[in-house]
Amino acid sequence: MPGIITLMTDFGTRDGYIGAVKGVLYSGAPSAQIVDITHDIEPFNVHQAAFTLLNYYDRFPKDTIHIVVVDPGVGTSRRGLVIRTPEHYLVGPDNGVFSLIFPRAGFRAYKIQESKLGREVSPTFHGRDVFAPAALKILGKEDINSFAEPVYDLQSFEKKYEKKADGSYRLEVIHVDRFGNLILNYTRYDWERMGSSEKIKLHFARGFLYGLKDTFGAAKEKEVLCMWDSSGFLQIAQNRGNAADTLQMGVGDEVRISFDRLTSNKKAHSV
Amino acid sequence: MPGIITLMTDFGTRDGYIGAVKGVLYSGAPSAQIVDITHDIEPFNVHQAAFTLLNYYDRFPKDTIHIVVVDPGVGTSRRGLVIRTPEHYLVGPDNGVFSLIFPRAGFRAYKIQESKLGREVSPTFHGRDVFAPAALKILGKEDINSFAEPVYDLQSFEKKYEKKADGSYRLEVIHVDRFGNLILNYTRYDWERMGSSEKIKLHFARGFLYGLKDTFGAAKEKEVLCMWDSSGFLQIAQNRGNAADTLQMGVGDEVRISFDRLTSNKKAHSV
Amino acid sequence: MPGIITLMTDFGTRDGYIGAVKGVLYSGAPSAQIVDITHDIEPFNVHQAAFTLLNYYDRFPKDTIHIVVVDPGVGTSRRGLVIRTPEHYLVGPDNGVFSLIFPRAGFRAYKIQESKLGREVSPTFHGRDVFAPAALKILGKEDINSFAEPVYDLQSFEKKYEKKADGSYRLEVIHVDRFGNLILNYTRYDWERMGSSEKIKLHFARGFLYGLKDTFGAAKEKEVLCMWDSSGFLQIAQNRGNAADTLQMGVGDEVRISFDRLTSNKKAHSV
Repeated sequence: MPGIITLMTDFGTRDGYIGAVKGVLYSGAPSAQIVDITHDIEPFNVHQAAFTLLNYYDRFPKDTIHIVVVDPGVGTSRRGLVIRTPEHYLVGPDNGVFSLIFPRAGFRAYKIQESKLGREVSPTFHGRDVFAPAALKILGKEDINSFAEPVYDLQSFEKKYEKKADGSYRLEVIHVDRFGNLILNYTRYDWERMGSSEKIKLHFARGFLYGLKDTFGAAKEKEVLCMWDSSGFLQIAQNRGNAADTLQMGVGDEVRISFDRLTSNKKAHSV
Repeated sequence: MPGIITLMTDFGTRDGYIGAVKGVLYSGAPSAQIVDITHDIEPFNVHQAAFTLLNYYDRFPKDTIHIVVVDPGVGTSRRGLVIRTPEHYLVGPDNGVFSLIFPRAGFRAYKIQESKLGREVSPTFHGRDVFAPAALKILGKEDINSFAEPVYDLQSFEKKYEKKADGSYRLEVIHVDRFGNLILNYTRYDWERMGSSEKIKLHFARGFLYGLKDTFGAAKEKEVLCMWDSSGFLQIAQNRGNAADTLQMGVGDEVRISFDRLTSNKKAHSV
Repeated sequence: MPGIITLMTDFGTRDGYIGAVKGVLYSGAPSAQIVDITHDIEPFNVHQAAFTLLNYYDRFPKDTIHIVVVDPGVGTSRRGLVIRTPEHYLVGPDNGVFSLIFPRAGFRAYKIQESKLGREVSPTFHGRDVFAPAALKILGKEDINSFAEPVYDLQSFEKKYEKKADGSYRLEVIHVDRFGNLILNYTRYDWERMGSSEKIKLHFARGFLYGLKDTFGAAKEKEVLCMWDSSGFLQIAQNRGNAADTLQMGVGDEVRISFDRLTSNKKAHSV
């Protein structure tokens, strides 16, 4: 039974819990590729996991099974899900962690029926006792309907930007990556729908930015810039620096975006 | 030469030392599954590694080889071990790191004879030069007696709980996991031998707990509770919180357990 | 397409960027062994990565491909490299990260021509879009000249020790590992060329050390000692302690080495 199963969790590695999940997976599929994405999601930070998932899930081969376990509701009545997109499978809790993918691909969702997994289920360790066994059934080509049933009312927390009276839009920082890049809830696809103006203007508490750059290196050392990240989100970055620290901004902070079509070609930035 | 070898160390990954161990393993067994458990054991914390091992070792398929290198005595006369349990192999130093497994399974222990490994052995890097080569010999189905000899007097540090004059028992916190759960040296097996009373009462410096819960979610938000962890140890936990922070407790702190068979069904907790 | 590809980066794992690189690699080579070395190199610390590489690269089987992405210049005109040593391949940026290997092995270097990779290349994510695809071409036995061209003027930052007027040499700390060992820019090979005197004397700000030890365990508990590390570099270490903390030393600090051939056999150390 070859095939690829990836793992993203907030377990850390030190306690051996993810080791237990791997043990279950190798026991059922000794020749599978079990791939660590990360176990360092901030504990219970479902938003962070949802964002991280976007960066890798569709880079993997067709039929890869992505397990995500960031699950503050484990042991409650929250549902366990299998989601089938055209190319991949997603397995994890129904708490919004998959919801950033919903607008990007068609999909079908199924609620895992624990009683049909044929295993004892610890109330606190669904990664090991529910999600890993479900992934093994998918890998073994079992019919999803034999252990799960269709559902339609999924949890979601996609953040929409708001249009303001002056024609600008209110964005917010939805993620700060390891390098201090500030990722905004605005994508290249949103921008193309609005006309792809290159005269993007961002306003935030400590300054403003004018115009898009293609790359970090197109900015001077320590210059703050605005660019698309590698998943297509707009980000505020700093060349050889940490934009979040420099601008003292973080998740939830507001940024206004407007599009200036008339102005001269002046360049400006905040620091 | 297929097969599965797991790795738990306190090396971190940043220095490339665990990379060297993996290089040796892949050189001897290019198609083996080499599985990271963790490299983030606190440096030299043999107790933590011993506890973590319990959480995963017996979830892996039969004949999996578990390498554990948390080894403050490397380069001294402490022995290197191969331990054969009915299902698995354990390879690492004789410093107690395997001793929590001893009461759980029959086993035979062997002292690795470095001179029979056919390699140069650095005095400071037994992970690479002793334990990885020994694992490769096991994977290659070599007779363990060809490179190791039976031993019987192993290091152990299992913590026993003490019975007090008033009929209670003195437990202690033996581990705090990433989520702040406080694990005690008392197992479901101990409890069953004592009659499986559901009226467990725990006393500790900042309060007490009464009764077992099945799951985090059976407690209210931020409520502190008492439950079995997924390896069968008793733990003090907090629903959507960090029990260690909330109760300001850590490894070595005392907890008294008693069993109340008469009282009314009142529920109480400390915070 | 079997084969082994290792990964060392400063990406961390939390953002899913290394997940994306793995996705590209598995998409091109589903049965390859993709091996994590570390993703915890300090952001942009090319020196640290260069040193870490020495600890593992030559332990892997012949034809292993080592990808290294610590790349502050991504998006600028810095070149992407494939380096062919007699036994291995190295893939990553031309910023000195491979330069500690140059004096140790013959090699040929090639500049990757991005336009010949047949993929869209994000200006900010060469790990995914340049280095992973180049590694796949090597794994697939494509002629390196079909996507890269020979280069000869590579970036290098090897630190040479200096001879001083009094016959001593000025060394410096080039790396501090997780255990606080202080690694110096002086190797066993340098020492053998100078006559292999066992009467090495090290002077530093807070004291001195006299003579080499074979192992940590040859020193008393908490004793500071001088020994060869497992890659052949001279290091200052502390038995069951952290030399960097104890001596308050770090990267860049100066150490003088001299060779005393006349003196009595006194032993001394600094703390």
